[in-house]
Amino acid sequence: MKLIIDCLGGDNSPEAQVEGAILAIRKRADLNIILVGDEKAIRAILDKHKVGADSRVEIVHAPGVITGNDKPIDAIRLKKDSSMVKSISMLREDESIDGMVSCGATGALIAAATLRIPRIEGVRRPALCPILPSMTGGIVGICDCGANVDSSPEMLQQNAIMASRYLESAYRVRKPRVALLNVGVEDEKGDDLRKDAFKLLKKTEGITFVGNMEARDALNGDYDLIVSDGFSGNVLCKSIEGTAMELMKKIKKDIYSKTKYKMGALLMKKMFQEEKEFMNYQNYGGSVLLGSEKVVVKGHGSAERVAVRACIDQAYRMVRNNMNKKIGASIAACLPEEEK
Amino acid sequence: MKLIIDCLGGDNSPEAQVEGAILAIRKRADLNIILVGDEKAIRAILDKHKVGADSRVEIVHAPGVITGNDKPIDAIRLKKDSSMVKSISMLREDESIDGMVSCGATGALIAAATLRIPRIEGVRRPALCPILPSMTGGIVGICDCGANVDSSPEMLQQNAIMASRYLESAYRVRKPRVALLNVGVEDEKGDDLRKDAFKLLKKTEGITFVGNMEARDALNGDYDLIVSDGFSGNVLCKSIEGTAMELMKKIKKDIYSKTKYKMGALLMKKMFQEEKEFMNYQNYGGSVLLGSEKVVVKGHGSAERVAVRACIDQAYRMVRNNMNKKIGASIAACLPEEEK
Repeated sequence: MKLIIDCLGGDNSPEAQVEGAILAIRKRADLNIILVGDEKAIRAILDKHKVGADSRVEIVHAPGVITGNDKPIDAIRLKKDSSMVKSISMLREDESIDGMVSCGATGALIAAATLRIPRIEGVRRPALCPILPSMTGGIVGICDCGANVDSSPEMLQQNAIMASRYLESAYRVRKPRVALLNVGVEDEKGDDLRKDAFKLLKKTEGITFVGNMEARDALNGDYDLIVSDGFSGNVLCKSIEGTAMELMKKIKKDIYSKTKYKMGALLMKKMFQEEKEFMNYQNYGGSVLLGSEKVVVKGHGSAERVAVRACIDQAYRMVRNNMNKKIGASIAACLPEEEK
Repeated sequence: MKLIIDCLGGDNSPEAQVEGAILAIRKRADLNIILVGDEKAIRAILDKHKVGADSRVEIVHAPGVITGNDKPIDAIRLKKDSSMVKSISMLREDESIDGMVSCGATGALIAAATLRIPRIEGVRRPALCPILPSMTGGIVGICDCGANVDSSPEMLQQNAIMASRYLESAYRVRKPRVALLNVGVEDEKGDDLRKDAFKLLKKTEGITFVGNMEARDALNGDYDLIVSDGFSGNVLCKSIEGTAMELMKKIKKDIYSKTKYKMGALLMKKMFQEEKEFMNYQNYGGSVLLGSEKVVVKGHGSAERVAVRACIDQAYRMVRNNMNKKIGASIAACLPEEEK
């Protein structure tokens, strides 16, 4: 198996990317890695860890960086020497490469992958699926989380299909329980998009649709997958992330306000560290762009090497378990009669 | 001033409603209250607190209850003896009544108020605006939070205008900083609804529009008002509520897992109580249905008497400060030329 690691664009790049790749190849004997970025910098990190040229690691020089300040479409058109554009081009052109991991700008990565990598046959639009921890110790996927700001009922149906195959392939979730993000749990809730999607999901084969759900129950462990349009899925993800972060920040600040609290917190230090780790979504892998013919994983901008390794491992499992083939078969089975 | 309190429908009704009303009239000498619900039950609570018939409290008998299980439209058509329908009818017909507070079923209340109470002139659709605590000690309003599942750019503009007047009238927020809920902060982000609303908001007089915002920054204190369509506003509110609740539940559970943690938590007991109070949105008042000619406040279903009193006080301030007149003037100033 061969995977590309885009080594530029993240807050800790290229160290985190290169070191994450080293961790990954040590774990998986059949994994080959292509590191794309500034060759000198990458070489220095490999040397430091005594990873030689005869190993399963290859370097491709592409020193340009696309940042969050670049306009996605302009950036992928103009920054041809960037590690991201180079990675995407290689992924498209080289049949021996199975997937890529990037911690670079999300908008540019989605645009580049959507425009340059062919879609799985029958897929209307690729969708982004991040993974969050549920409060019962499991995980929950949210799809779509922002790849498409406009969605049709058929796209929501395809999000459910693609992300079900993803949870099975990458996380061994059996029969993922799929719910539709809505303003209430009753069957007839929501706008036309939700009403039509509900009817479609109910008759979709190959998924376990359990009905509508409300945002307040996203983390309670009742659902493995939340299906939504890209706009409200983005709102859901970011508000969970923001609320957890702001709340822990407030608790930390309040602890420092009194000596008594500081003493108490000292006794609970390990617990607070565990809470922090629990909520650190980097531990759960990156967001996957589902529906593209090659596996594309978007790691968090602030990913450290362990998080990068998790993303690589995620990509490995998807490729190893033939996820995209399974997505293709499921999508084909659910296409409207006239498109079959 | 005269306000109606719908005494049925909440988890703690009618005690919380009647006792909340008693607290409110003790604070406001010019406030008269009409308690609508089961007369005997209300009378018993008043007697217990020695509130006599010569006081500023009146009782209207309406023993029926609308619950969350009733279909809103059917309920308000068929349950004519319910406290909610009776309250809305009196509010519509009696000019001397200025507003109402209900902790009953949200869907039915919105439907009843929207269908039966005239709108302020020029208002397209009433919108629901709850108040959440910001992490810097202030508050933040979210409008619309679910009164309308479909929204137009003009409705988002009106949400910004109505809720700005609301924050000024009920919370003395000066020049509320208004942001548009979007998938990114850049000006051109989002779907057509967001792009068109952005342009409208930018040229709207009488509001302080600061641009697009992301859900993760909802509580960080940078914004006084978040403007959104009812669907994604609902997702935002409920995910903030759910994440905070689930997280505190998890911390509580983890504390009980080790003696050391329990000892630490004992030292921090007061702090944890304060965090809980801080996040208890009941302390910040109810959600207001903006745009209806009379003031309508939706208290939380689980509201206790202090929360009910906060809702009544909120209604009092809106009426006292002529909020609806100000909303009418602002809306008129921003109507398209052909509607003026």
